[in-house]
Amino acid sequence: MYTSPVDDILFTLNHIAGLDGDASVDADIVEAVIWEAGRFCDATIAPAAARGDKEGSKLANGEVRSPTGWPEIYRAWAAAGWNGLAAPMEAGGQGLPHRLQIAAMEIWNGGSMAFALAPMLTAGAAEALAAHGSDALKARFLPKMVSGEWTGTMNLTEPHAGSDLGTLRTRAERRDDGTYRIFGQKIYITWGEHDFTDNIVHLVLARLADAPEGTRGISLFLVPKFIVNEDETLGARNDLFCHSIEEKLGIHASPTCTMIYGDGRFGEEPGAVGYLIGEENRGLACMFTMMNNARLAVGAQGVAMAEAATQGALAYARERRQGKAPGAATASPIIDHPDIARTLLTMKALTQGSRAITYLCAEAVDRAHEAEGDEKRHWQDRAALLTPIAKSFPTDVGVEVASLGIQVHGGMGFVEETGAARLLRDARIAPIYEGTNGIQAIDLVTRKLPLGDGAHVRGLIAELSAIAKAVTSVEGDKGAWGETAARLDKAIGELITATDWLQSELAAGRLAAALAGATAYQRLFGLVLSGVLLAKGAAVVVEDGRQPQRIALARFFAENLLGETAALADAILHGANSLEAARIALN
Amino acid sequence: MYTSPVDDILFTLNHIAGLDGDASVDADIVEAVIWEAGRFCDATIAPAAARGDKEGSKLANGEVRSPTGWPEIYRAWAAAGWNGLAAPMEAGGQGLPHRLQIAAMEIWNGGSMAFALAPMLTAGAAEALAAHGSDALKARFLPKMVSGEWTGTMNLTEPHAGSDLGTLRTRAERRDDGTYRIFGQKIYITWGEHDFTDNIVHLVLARLADAPEGTRGISLFLVPKFIVNEDETLGARNDLFCHSIEEKLGIHASPTCTMIYGDGRFGEEPGAVGYLIGEENRGLACMFTMMNNARLAVGAQGVAMAEAATQGALAYARERRQGKAPGAATASPIIDHPDIARTLLTMKALTQGSRAITYLCAEAVDRAHEAEGDEKRHWQDRAALLTPIAKSFPTDVGVEVASLGIQVHGGMGFVEETGAARLLRDARIAPIYEGTNGIQAIDLVTRKLPLGDGAHVRGLIAELSAIAKAVTSVEGDKGAWGETAARLDKAIGELITATDWLQSELAAGRLAAALAGATAYQRLFGLVLSGVLLAKGAAVVVEDGRQPQRIALARFFAENLLGETAALADAILHGANSLEAARIALN
Repeated sequence: MYTSPVDDILFTLNHIAGLDGDASVDADIVEAVIWEAGRFCDATIAPAAARGDKEGSKLANGEVRSPTGWPEIYRAWAAAGWNGLAAPMEAGGQGLPHRLQIAAMEIWNGGSMAFALAPMLTAGAAEALAAHGSDALKARFLPKMVSGEWTGTMNLTEPHAGSDLGTLRTRAERRDDGTYRIFGQKIYITWGEHDFTDNIVHLVLARLADAPEGTRGISLFLVPKFIVNEDETLGARNDLFCHSIEEKLGIHASPTCTMIYGDGRFGEEPGAVGYLIGEENRGLACMFTMMNNARLAVGAQGVAMAEAATQGALAYARERRQGKAPGAATASPIIDHPDIARTLLTMKALTQGSRAITYLCAEAVDRAHEAEGDEKRHWQDRAALLTPIAKSFPTDVGVEVASLGIQVHGGMGFVEETGAARLLRDARIAPIYEGTNGIQAIDLVTRKLPLGDGAHVRGLIAELSAIAKAVTSVEGDKGAWGETAARLDKAIGELITATDWLQSELAAGRLAAALAGATAYQRLFGLVLSGVLLAKGAAVVVEDGRQPQRIALARFFAENLLGETAALADAILHGANSLEAARIALN
Repeated sequence: MYTSPVDDILFTLNHIAGLDGDASVDADIVEAVIWEAGRFCDATIAPAAARGDKEGSKLANGEVRSPTGWPEIYRAWAAAGWNGLAAPMEAGGQGLPHRLQIAAMEIWNGGSMAFALAPMLTAGAAEALAAHGSDALKARFLPKMVSGEWTGTMNLTEPHAGSDLGTLRTRAERRDDGTYRIFGQKIYITWGEHDFTDNIVHLVLARLADAPEGTRGISLFLVPKFIVNEDETLGARNDLFCHSIEEKLGIHASPTCTMIYGDGRFGEEPGAVGYLIGEENRGLACMFTMMNNARLAVGAQGVAMAEAATQGALAYARERRQGKAPGAATASPIIDHPDIARTLLTMKALTQGSRAITYLCAEAVDRAHEAEGDEKRHWQDRAALLTPIAKSFPTDVGVEVASLGIQVHGGMGFVEETGAARLLRDARIAPIYEGTNGIQAIDLVTRKLPLGDGAHVRGLIAELSAIAKAVTSVEGDKGAWGETAARLDKAIGELITATDWLQSELAAGRLAAALAGATAYQRLFGLVLSGVLLAKGAAVVVEDGRQPQRIALARFFAENLLGETAALADAILHGANSLEAARIALN
């Protein structure tokens, strides 16, 4: 059973993501929030995860029934105030740093990824509304989305328009009263319909008839399941419904809905009533505000899956006895076998590296929020640069570590009863949604490397280099660090080489060559960040007695996992030619 | 929909696994067998796979009902003579090379892994019986196991005894008539009960009361579901039954049974009637004969999953249009995006590399079978050395490629409808059963590297080195090979360094250090074999017009995937210290 890793989370928040000594939030509050979140999750959400997976959410007559007990859990969770953790106080939120929100997200996801998706989507929708909605619209919808009394959804995808939103066809028509009517079909709408709450607030991308083609002609609408009256009571059912839900590999408890807008099922005339958010044809910009933070939250899902898988594998490996480890006289716990120990350390190191990256990105979001002027720009760029890495690396790690977790369990891992298989099934979606990791890599290389005329990424790498130099010259047992310093230095060098090469290919207009190495570069960057941040954490002296373990894990990462960076840099610099030549092999 | 890759299979059999020009089998027969197997699979097995997965096998009142239509498919398959492909002619088989059996196995698995498991287990059981059974026992059971009229199973695992068979507790008691009575519980028995055939022949490992402890006290018994009378009619139901079947991540159509022997449910007195195979207390040796080939067959499952995933992803990527690839004016098929092309090439290259390794190992099995004296010993050692690699590398690749296949499909990959998710679910068992890949790595390092006083592995590497030198100096377009020669040379050098280091650690008695790198070494060996064998195939001039594609893929493998070997060699040589030091991080 998953136990929220409160100590590791607090350590990472404080010593890697800079909350320690941060004047904007009291240390006691940070600790209390994380401890209480962990307590709620471990007592209530985590125990419901297996049942939720087995029962799944079911659609009947347009209504979705969530698993037994889940509506009550959701309502208890919202009633405890968890939904508004990072929302602004003026909207009824607690105005805490985004780092706490991401840490709490990790916790909810560790308990049940299917459950956590409902608040995750609500947070995204609320954020877009808060940033771009009119005061009237906010007044009517935001408080209940912040309290969790209503949930929110994001309606982007259509059957022919996934990554390529420019081609979407859902229509919006203006009405004289300033509202719009929405017509169309959206797919893959997470928690698009359910029995948690009495209203659901859909944010829908659609196109006006006179809109420009492509992404410049997309508008964002708020389309509630039930119309909200002036007096805040619920009015008529809006003309939208859930047509079907997907049969998926994982996150079974979370209904993935096909939503139909405006086919006339409800209301006097066809058309779902929608309210414009922001300006006409500027919908994508509104969506992007939200998408960055959603991407970061998906990264936290990867961390959560990796954490849960690591916990499960560790517990099993301590108990299960098979064969004699070197030097043992009788059957050993399998954790004693070097190969299993290596696997478990790999899982643990990748998990903690992923957590560090995710929280570091959340720190940049917080600082961009607080700062002004040039400094604000700096932190906005930092968040922008880290987001694709923080979405992709932890989600790839989530799949990788969940798969290793099955392997540690042997045959038991393939049997659903242990829960190891569920983690892989759930984790597998995270590299796909909110922009596939391939899309993230394109974003990283083509939009983020050029930030600040290419200077921003070099600044970050210089910081990493400085951290690497500093950590390995700290006081204490030098031997314990092994070759960490040299390994970090080498990996950072490879990151620099790859960055320079990509920037020069981009400058020369050789886009295909740069893109050929984009995924490898994204992984390379994630590995270097993980290695450096683990070492940074290990260098911090906290009186918790865990420093020897942290140094050992940072060293393990540097000496065993960082070697991949050379191969990645090599594939980036030299692989593009053979990739083009090899296209004929796909015919 | 999966289409049996007949051309690739024949090419690999002929030009990598030496069937071309092999005097023991007519080229026309090879071609006819593979073509016909492909035809049967594509028309009959593959179309039943999705339904089989969805329905699954169900247990009710001790009877297992397989998915709709499956018993008929199995019987048609057996009636067509497919079960006895490589079985000796004196037992009613066709006596064809083992390579053909493995190639056919790949085909059945590509159609449906759950289906192919039934004949796979039967083949293993029949092989152990043929090699070690008495003439009387063989006369009674072998012909129907070869024809497929009855299936066979392997009963090794018990709840506390998976990899560690020495601790198994199933009891055998001698009876005066020379038979035995078997008592105990076995788990994870694939196709342990079903409705394909009217009898099932269980091979069961058990322990006599006076047997020595550990693995030297295990005997092998044949325990039929129904007693077979002297006149070959079926007699009484034997005292065994299927107690439950597992709810698993994948291979849903294949029942994974808990079998209870001798609890008195059937017969006059408790005890399942068993017949000794081979000698008392020598059961493990009998089982090992069979297990090597079963491991190779599991490797073929990995190849099949990777092949099916690659086909599915390729078809989807050609059709799905999203975004503009570099230089494109309108939305491109996603195969045109460099990142997707790289993914597809990686999938294809890993699949073909895995196939090459698997068939090469099957060739060694064939040659060991045919040769005599020193030559026999040489090929036995070769098969023994290649088996752990041929089991582990393709099964890891199966998982990796199936996961990439989901990714290429985007959101559609996570929806069960496309079948991409099923491939990952099915593929995930292969690195676990028939000895986890970690166990294979221990076997490779501790038992196979020492073969011939360490000379055998060096001989194989020298052969690889010679092939690598030869292929890249062939006639033709030198430019097309790119840096293939240098890359192969470097990777082989790393394999040599790692091999030398492991052998010296073993010689010095530093077992833990050697085992710490075992999995990395196994992967390193698999990558080098793949790279060299793909290049070997690419150098062959066959008038099929495909040589440019083969060279391009071999080059892609060398320039893009072989870079991992340096990191692996590094982790083997330098990772052991930090692994030991890092154990504290697991506390």
